[in-house]
This record gives sequence, structure tokens and C-alpha cells, in this order.
Amino acid sequence: MLHMSAKPESPLLSELERPAARALNVRGQGQAFLVCEHASRFIPASLNGLGLSDEAARSHAAWDIGALELSVELMGALDAPLVHSRISRLVYDCNRPPSAPDAVPAKSERFEVPGNVDLTHARRTSRVAEVYEPFRDLLSQTLDARPAPPVMITIHSFTPIYRGQPRTVELGILHDSDDRAARLLLEAAQGSGLNTALNEPYSATDGVTHTLREHALKRGLPNVMIEVRNDLINSPAGVNRISGLLAPMLAQMVDQLTTEAAE
Amino acid sequence: MLHMSAKPESPLLSELERPAARALNVRGQGQAFLVCEHASRFIPASLNGLGLSDEAARSHAAWDIGALELSVELMGALDAPLVHSRISRLVYDCNRPPSAPDAVPAKSERFEVPGNVDLTHARRTSRVAEVYEPFRDLLSQTLDARPAPPVMITIHSFTPIYRGQPRTVELGILHDSDDRAARLLLEAAQGSGLNTALNEPYSATDGVTHTLREHALKRGLPNVMIEVRNDLINSPAGVNRISGLLAPMLAQMVDQLTTEAAE
Repeated sequence: MLHMSAKPESPLLSELERPAARALNVRGQGQAFLVCEHASRFIPASLNGLGLSDEAARSHAAWDIGALELSVELMGALDAPLVHSRISRLVYDCNRPPSAPDAVPAKSERFEVPGNVDLTHARRTSRVAEVYEPFRDLLSQTLDARPAPPVMITIHSFTPIYRGQPRTVELGILHDSDDRAARLLLEAAQGSGLNTALNEPYSATDGVTHTLREHALKRGLPNVMIEVRNDLINSPAGVNRISGLLAPMLAQMVDQLTTEAAE
Repeated sequence: MLHMSAKPESPLLSELERPAARALNVRGQGQAFLVCEHASRFIPASLNGLGLSDEAARSHAAWDIGALELSVELMGALDAPLVHSRISRLVYDCNRPPSAPDAVPAKSERFEVPGNVDLTHARRTSRVAEVYEPFRDLLSQTLDARPAPPVMITIHSFTPIYRGQPRTVELGILHDSDDRAARLLLEAAQGSGLNTALNEPYSATDGVTHTLREHALKRGLPNVMIEVRNDLINSPAGVNRISGLLAPMLAQMVDQLTTEAAE
């Protein structure tokens, strides 16, 4: 009870730095629903950069490079709503539940995160309250406001070299317990020219499907997580090319699922 | 007539590279209407990079750095539609009429553009037909579909150093013959902490208000062009800060203009 009666910490996010999450194109007419949890590398000023080097703060550790740009393109192509975080995953990883130790990681693959080491309970709680909960609530509200049950697609990117090994996969299609969308998307990806794999470079067993579970599975919505190798979307030319390839595949998959549901 | 009977050139944009422009959040409920003509540095593959160096192709010459990110933030904050180009202004500058020599510039402030030197009539015509006209038509259609006359706001950024001189202005507010929105915005910007100036670093006499003339003045819509110094919006922290400052100013200005109109 001591925690609850303690003087509140000063806010994590200043007035100017809010909101922690944004919902775009909420009246879009498409049946896809896009989510981008790792859209930003923004670290609120109150955290003093979490003690990171410039290199770390700009790296894949802090965000999914190119994922927001790709999401915005797909939002336009599919006329889909898009909910995205505006805060770095090193502050709080919105694709993790508060119970997950790596929701506020003290180290990433390559970098220590000094500002997250030995975090007090109060400070961890403020990360949850000011970053995760606003994101979660906005996503829930936006989903619940849709006129028809959408297909949820979460958009991520991954680093081309991991622990020194180059990754050859270009497009990863990940699912949790409901693999309807993933199977159809894998089929639609044939002939795209993209080196595509199911449940690579991560899978549900790595704990990366929190958003799918929390928001899609609970509502019975078809859902899939997309991972694009970030060297393919780190430029406008790359984003245009990959969105040009992905948009028709996603449209086909969404169409198949929603036609099926209507039959 | 020779031109018209000549064999058509192969398309400038491949199927995968289209569309040349995008309209986002077209059912937004706000009264602002955002335009970003210089949103992308993308150069279609058929143009072989216009013969530019990597430095030139990534520089302010090719696009307005940070302008699309800022526009997307403002779109979310104001629930406004946003129409943006997906093609570099070095291919065709969508804020210039086809009659302007600098619509397809053979040089920028610092760089020659080899691919634009001595352009044939057919090639210049294809730039107009495949970049400018789709942008212009999409903007017109999206505007005409609005349920109530909006306030048009075009979003631009400028380079902090021009011809060797540092620029101290941070926010430029530009107008053409209708200065209603600009005056109100200038007032709203007082106390923002941004070094703000009217008709700097450019003004209508520099030929930079084509979109305002072509789309807003013709329809009698209040309108303003915003120029943000690009070092303030070249990072997520900068974009969040500037959008946090601009959104309430723009909301106030739009509110004053639309309340006025309704009275």
C-alpha cells in the first residue's frame, strides 16, 4: 500500500509529447485493420534518452525501421484504419503485456538500456499507465467502433543481420492460434518475388503475438502479423515497392476472409 | 501533330510504382484539409535516378524533409484529410503549373539534375501526365467530396542553410491573395516559442502558391501555406514537438474561420 500513498511521480510524457498513440483513418471503408506497435523511436524528454548512445537510439532496437511509413502506405491502399504507438519500444513495448519482463527491456540484442535497469515499481507502473494503457485502450475503442468485424494485420520490420548472421527471409507471416489469415496470405504471396516464410524470423512462441491475442483472438477476428526485413523499407523507393507488392496480397486475403464470413 | 501520332513512350511509372498521389483519411471529420506536394523523394526506376548523386537524391532538393511525417501527425491530430504526392519534386514539382519552367527543374539550389536537362517535349509531357495530373485530379476530387468547405493548409519544409546563409526563421506562414487564414495563424503562433514570420522564407512572388491558387482560391476556400525549418522535423522527437505546437494553432485558426463562415 506504500506505493499507492506515495507522492505521484512527475508525468512521463509532457503535454506536448502526448498522445502516446494515434488512430488514423478511423472511418476507412476497407475491411483490413492495421496496427503498428513499434512505429516510433521517440523517447520522452523526461527519460534523458534512457542513457542510450545515438547509435542505439536510432537503431532497430528502438523501433521497427520503415514500419510506420509502410503502414501509412497500406492504410491508403486498403482504406484501412491504422492505430500506432508514438513512443519507442524501449520505453514500453506495446506488443508485450505488462507481465512480460521484456515489456521494458534492460537490454536489446546489441545494446544495454541503462535507463531501464533496476527500474522502481513506480517507474515501471508509469510506463504501463502512460504508454501501454493508452495504446491498448485506443486500439480497443477503434476496433469496437468498426461497423463490421475487420481482419487485423500488425505491421513489423526486422533487422537484416541478427547476432552476426544475415537473414535471407524478406517477408515473415506470423500467426498465433488462428492461422486463417496467415495461410491465405502465404498463398497470396506466391509469385510475389519476395522470399516469404511462415513464422519466421519469429513465432508466437517468442511472445510476439500479444496484440493479436489481446485484441483479435478475444474478439474472434481473423488476424496476422507481418514482418518485413527492414533493408527493404528503409527508403521511399523501398516502401513504395513493398507496399505495391503487399497491398494486393492483403486485399485478396481480406476479401477471401470477409466473403467467407458473409456466406 | 507529329507529337500526337508518335509512338507513345514507355510509361514513366511502373504498375508497382503507382499511384502518383494518395488521399488519406478522406472521411475525416475536421474542417482542415491538408496537402503535401513534396512528401516523397521517390524517383521512378525508369528515370535512372535522374543522374543524381546519392547526396542530391536524399537532400532537400528532392523533397521536403519531414513534411510527410508532420502532415500525417497533423492529419491525426486534426482528423483532416491529407492529399500527398508519392513522387520527388525533381521528377515534377506538384506545386508548380505545367507552364512553369521550374516544374521540372534542370538545377536546384546546389545540384544539377542531369536527367532534366534538354528534356524532349514528349518526356516533359509524360511527367505532367503521370505525376502532376493525377495529383491535381485526386486533390480536386477529394476536395469536392468534402461535405462542407474546408480550410486548405499546405505543409512544406525548408533547408536551414540557403546559399551558405543560416536561416533563423523556424515557422513561415505564407499566403496568396486571400490572407485570412495566414493572419489568424500568425496570431495563434504568438507565444508558441517558434520564431515565426509572414511570407518567409518565400512568398507568393516566388511562385510557390500554385496549389493554393489552383485549388483553394478558385473555390473561395480560406487557405495558407506552412513552411517549417527542416532541422526541426528531421527526427520523431522533432515531428512530435512541432506537431504538438502546430496542431492547436491550426485548430484555433480553422475554428475561427469556420465559425465565422457559419455566422
